[in-house]
Amino acid sequence: MSEVEVKKTQESLQDRLAQVVELLQRQRVVEDLTHRQEGANSDRVENLVHRQNLVELQRKLDDLHSADVAYILEALPLDDRLTLWQLVKADRDGDILLEVSDSVRESLIADMDDHELLAAAKDMDADELADLASELPRDVVHELMESLDQQQRERVRSALSYDEEQVGALMDFEMVTIREDVSLEVVLRYLRRLKELPGHTDKLFVVDYDGVLKGVLPIKRLLVNDPDKQVAEVMASDPVSFHPDEDAYDAAQAFERYDLISAPVVDKNGKLIGRLTIDEMVDLIREESESEVLNMAGLREEEDIFASVWKSLRNRWAWLAINLITAFVASRVIGLFEGSIEKLVALAALMPIVAGIGGNSGNQTITMIVRAMALDQVSTGNTSRLMRKELAVALINGLVWGGVIGVVAYMLYGSWSLGVVMTAAMTLNLLLAALMGVLIPMTLAKMGRDPAMGASVMITAMTDSGGFFIFLGLATIFLL
Amino acid sequence: MSEVEVKKTQESLQDRLAQVVELLQRQRVVEDLTHRQEGANSDRVENLVHRQNLVELQRKLDDLHSADVAYILEALPLDDRLTLWQLVKADRDGDILLEVSDSVRESLIADMDDHELLAAAKDMDADELADLASELPRDVVHELMESLDQQQRERVRSALSYDEEQVGALMDFEMVTIREDVSLEVVLRYLRRLKELPGHTDKLFVVDYDGVLKGVLPIKRLLVNDPDKQVAEVMASDPVSFHPDEDAYDAAQAFERYDLISAPVVDKNGKLIGRLTIDEMVDLIREESESEVLNMAGLREEEDIFASVWKSLRNRWAWLAINLITAFVASRVIGLFEGSIEKLVALAALMPIVAGIGGNSGNQTITMIVRAMALDQVSTGNTSRLMRKELAVALINGLVWGGVIGVVAYMLYGSWSLGVVMTAAMTLNLLLAALMGVLIPMTLAKMGRDPAMGASVMITAMTDSGGFFIFLGLATIFLL
Repeated sequence: MSEVEVKKTQESLQDRLAQVVELLQRQRVVEDLTHRQEGANSDRVENLVHRQNLVELQRKLDDLHSADVAYILEALPLDDRLTLWQLVKADRDGDILLEVSDSVRESLIADMDDHELLAAAKDMDADELADLASELPRDVVHELMESLDQQQRERVRSALSYDEEQVGALMDFEMVTIREDVSLEVVLRYLRRLKELPGHTDKLFVVDYDGVLKGVLPIKRLLVNDPDKQVAEVMASDPVSFHPDEDAYDAAQAFERYDLISAPVVDKNGKLIGRLTIDEMVDLIREESESEVLNMAGLREEEDIFASVWKSLRNRWAWLAINLITAFVASRVIGLFEGSIEKLVALAALMPIVAGIGGNSGNQTITMIVRAMALDQVSTGNTSRLMRKELAVALINGLVWGGVIGVVAYMLYGSWSLGVVMTAAMTLNLLLAALMGVLIPMTLAKMGRDPAMGASVMITAMTDSGGFFIFLGLATIFLL
Repeated sequence: MSEVEVKKTQESLQDRLAQVVELLQRQRVVEDLTHRQEGANSDRVENLVHRQNLVELQRKLDDLHSADVAYILEALPLDDRLTLWQLVKADRDGDILLEVSDSVRESLIADMDDHELLAAAKDMDADELADLASELPRDVVHELMESLDQQQRERVRSALSYDEEQVGALMDFEMVTIREDVSLEVVLRYLRRLKELPGHTDKLFVVDYDGVLKGVLPIKRLLVNDPDKQVAEVMASDPVSFHPDEDAYDAAQAFERYDLISAPVVDKNGKLIGRLTIDEMVDLIREESESEVLNMAGLREEEDIFASVWKSLRNRWAWLAINLITAFVASRVIGLFEGSIEKLVALAALMPIVAGIGGNSGNQTITMIVRAMALDQVSTGNTSRLMRKELAVALINGLVWGGVIGVVAYMLYGSWSLGVVMTAAMTLNLLLAALMGVLIPMTLAKMGRDPAMGASVMITAMTDSGGFFIFLGLATIFLL
């Protein structure tokens, strides 16, 4: 879709959201009144207010960039969201659907009939259609495909054939291609005939007659060089390019590293088949880091903040259930030592300190490692060094803070040996936390899983059961 | 600094890192040998191997993009990092210093003398100098400032006057400005005379004789429009622009939302004073989400993966100490009920289940809320609705999972009343977790703090102490 010009106003987005929310609330009050007084004489007045409100809301919406409307839709609970969605002009539906998050999009599509969906999708590019296809009803997709020409249909099919984490699923097809044996003057004239250039065109793609990529001509060079020069003299002949089956996140990191704005995608024969642009990459970087945060807490990413209670439950149940099992295991570890606790009840009060500090420290380690792995900084060459460092940090923390808490235990319960056991247990549990904080994400990665996956739940399980076992075990041996 | 052309090779970055690591290891082995056999006859042979190795490493480095060298430096432990840094050609020092992360940069600068630093910084732009200034020795900064012309010095001073989270600290000064009353043909000729355009030039800035921004001319429009047209006819007259004292993260979100590549920065009189570019914004988005992850675990962001043990300790101590206090409080809560535990030791084994599930569930809630707040989706208008939803999820989870664990407790200890107390305590603690998971980040935000700050430690503190108190309290009342 064409790039929309953004009108800069002095209001922030937050302000605009507040205004829309206020209008929606007024709207709801009016609706309530109308409903209650149905058939009464005041009907016409209410209806008038009602309509004025709607007109004002619609005007507000028309002034906003599609991305801003998308933002507001995301920030509204379902009923308000759908009220607003009804007010959006039909010709903007497509743009806005492409901007909203997956879960919000699902709720909007569920509210549209086939006819509306077809209208919204009819001006979309092949890559945009492919993005949307999985969420549209089967017959709508079928009808859309029928309406496309051969090339477009091929492109949609090709984009759909890639996994959403592959470059092929994120590329678009809006490349401007030129030949290397023409002058810059010819290129400039050719561009002028195009009337409009695709968004994010910072370079033109130079291809031969078979469509094989020969190089790229950065617009910057086109502008500063003598128009009589040939493209071949000025182009960059060995540009960064990607393959459609490459990992999209690796491509995003390359964009970030080399400050790219667009880059060609070529097949295994070097033929140009599409391009990647920075806007898709930014979205990907954002999504990746979000899902990292969510995964660590054992959440999947589909839950938006106004998801229904039922959806939230489904999102959170899996890890809660796992947590229940690990908590049960920790409880049985304590159960093993019930005899010891009956003899020395202070153990019951002190044991959560050992487990808690271990959990916190393990979470710090695992967060560091997961982050370093996301940045590709962990390799087999440096694992043992990393491990030594984490163990050293844990040892010092254990002796120092374990020592402090040992002294406190002595002061509370008047037993030096209890204090020493406390210090020893803390130190050992922190060492366990460090070990597991490094091993868990690395093992997950080796198994081909996301290293952040429920990392927090797993490390806490280890340090809880481990901490109880170490502390109660030491106490049973040395104190009783 | 000028944009370097990136050579695409078939090796991945990981491969290149592995190669450098291997060369460094070989290097170390040779050095060890040379050291041990000092004065012996084999000296010359070792020295030869030594030198060959260095030459090979240096050739590898010369082939790499500055960003790739920066990546490799970041992935190496300190001693290897400095060995490599010595091999980097002096004229690339500046570029690479600008690419590496803060903590790695610090370690590299500490290894350079004033002379080297001056050489590295002499070709930098004002905004780049400002980025580096705080980390350079005082006299180096002084000498650098002396060497600048009036305008550059002013720019460095101005960039330094802003907080690092403000737009003013991130803008650069490489704008190409034009007048509105000339033809596109004149603009094209003017650009050709410039010989080179700054990176990320997707638009030219149209200013009047006082330097006030009148609009922007997207390069795309310059290329497709008739050269006889005037700039004023073709330019966008109401572009998205920023003020230097605006929050940089808001600007980054605007870049993301409106798919911008560059945007003007104007002072309060509308005068053009700089520009923002997407590369800086991408770095910011990346840093923001990283610091969110780290903050939740109670880590500051300065620790790189090979930071010294001492640095890691400093990074982690603050929150560990806080955690120690909260764990001590939880322990004292249990201490209150030692009498109950002595009478019914099963309580000691069951209480960590209540606390643990509460902590996990609270972490899920707080992660959702922190994320929604980062995306500006939480407003005063929807707080109570959010709270109701989280409480509903907690109530259902509490009844269902609490019920399961209640049955398990009955089967283990043969007491129905113990099972019921367990279910009730779980439900109440999950409600507490939901309440605190919403309130903690909101309160932090109201106090002007980062809502993610140590969120995980705080929620766990609440659910631990709260869980123990609720469970042991209910047990004391109903079971003893």
